[in-house]
Amino acid sequence: MGEEVINGNLESTNRVVDIYPLSNYVFESKQPLIDRDETLAERAQRMRANYASCGLRTRVEAVLLVELLKHPHLLLLQVKNSFFKLPGGRLRPGESEINGLKRKLSSKLSINEDGFDTEWEVGECLGKWWRPDFETLMYPYLPTRVRKPKECTKLFLVNLPITQKFSVPKNLKMLAVPLFQIHENTYGPVIAGVPQLLSRFSINFIEN
Amino acid sequence: MGEEVINGNLESTNRVVDIYPLSNYVFESKQPLIDRDETLAERAQRMRANYASCGLRTRVEAVLLVELLKHPHLLLLQVKNSFFKLPGGRLRPGESEINGLKRKLSSKLSINEDGFDTEWEVGECLGKWWRPDFETLMYPYLPTRVRKPKECTKLFLVNLPITQKFSVPKNLKMLAVPLFQIHENTYGPVIAGVPQLLSRFSINFIEN
Repeated sequence: MGEEVINGNLESTNRVVDIYPLSNYVFESKQPLIDRDETLAERAQRMRANYASCGLRTRVEAVLLVELLKHPHLLLLQVKNSFFKLPGGRLRPGESEINGLKRKLSSKLSINEDGFDTEWEVGECLGKWWRPDFETLMYPYLPTRVRKPKECTKLFLVNLPITQKFSVPKNLKMLAVPLFQIHENTYGPVIAGVPQLLSRFSINFIEN
Repeated sequence: MGEEVINGNLESTNRVVDIYPLSNYVFESKQPLIDRDETLAERAQRMRANYASCGLRTRVEAVLLVELLKHPHLLLLQVKNSFFKLPGGRLRPGESEINGLKRKLSSKLSINEDGFDTEWEVGECLGKWWRPDFETLMYPYLPTRVRKPKECTKLFLVNLPITQKFSVPKNLKMLAVPLFQIHENTYGPVIAGVPQLLSRFSINFIEN
């Protein structure tokens, strides 16, 4: 479950990702999370203040997959019935990427914020996106002439166990969105790129 | 040169790709390659015939990177001053992906078609694209309800040596295109996705 499998398929390594039916998982609600950024302007302001005190901000986000109708679905959080995001958040100064992602997943999706009830299995880094300035778009490369990027977002594959209970804050909605809809739709460039980042894996649907 | 480097950066592995200045490479021309597909209709017809005799067609294509102005550039082949493609081609029945890609790179880019003059270092698979039917678009996942895809294209990172001579057939043009232009522009979905597929690597510009 979740290991890297070296396939007998000639010389090339073929990574296999096991995913389980959506019906294996339970979704409950919990107390709302405080949203520190009411507006995009507030977020930009907070990013500026954080950059001034801590430098380059690193975000870590999780790609969580489930199966529905024999197609991989990505778990997304919807904020205020409008924009979508991958579960995750910003690292604390000095915090490792994997520990930070586990902490963020627990605070957002576990019953106990300390996460003692959930063992998150963080897999490999799928891709990185750079934000050259506080209010600009993100790019999957460091644009030329940008010497001091303001934010780096790293996406990690997180392997879900065969079953798990998610506790979703009441001010967020969790959705399982099919990869084809993500690829075609406008969830923003980072999420829209997830199907491509996953394409090097063979996805193995586990049936109950 | 080209190895995978495990970075000391906490727990996460950070793959480093070394790339060299474009000026390190020499580009010559050689006899034109026969283009078997004058039109898209001819290509679809040939794909149908191949599928009938050999089943699922697998293509392998190379992502070759060079440095120019401190930004990674992708080597693309332009056909007839119109569309662009990654160097590569179709595997022979039973041929391994890596051997097939080396053979295709030699036939398209080496002085001697047998490729004895070039040692291609094929790295990891970056992504896969599926063609559900002979004349349809490609997708970075197997679309639902498609039981018999007609073509699978696999992209591999190919690590270039510090210097190399390319012999480009006279009916093709080779270009080094910056990643930012590929990401923004319309080279088709497969090529436009390469910057994302590369984003998990740290690119190390080697200076002369």
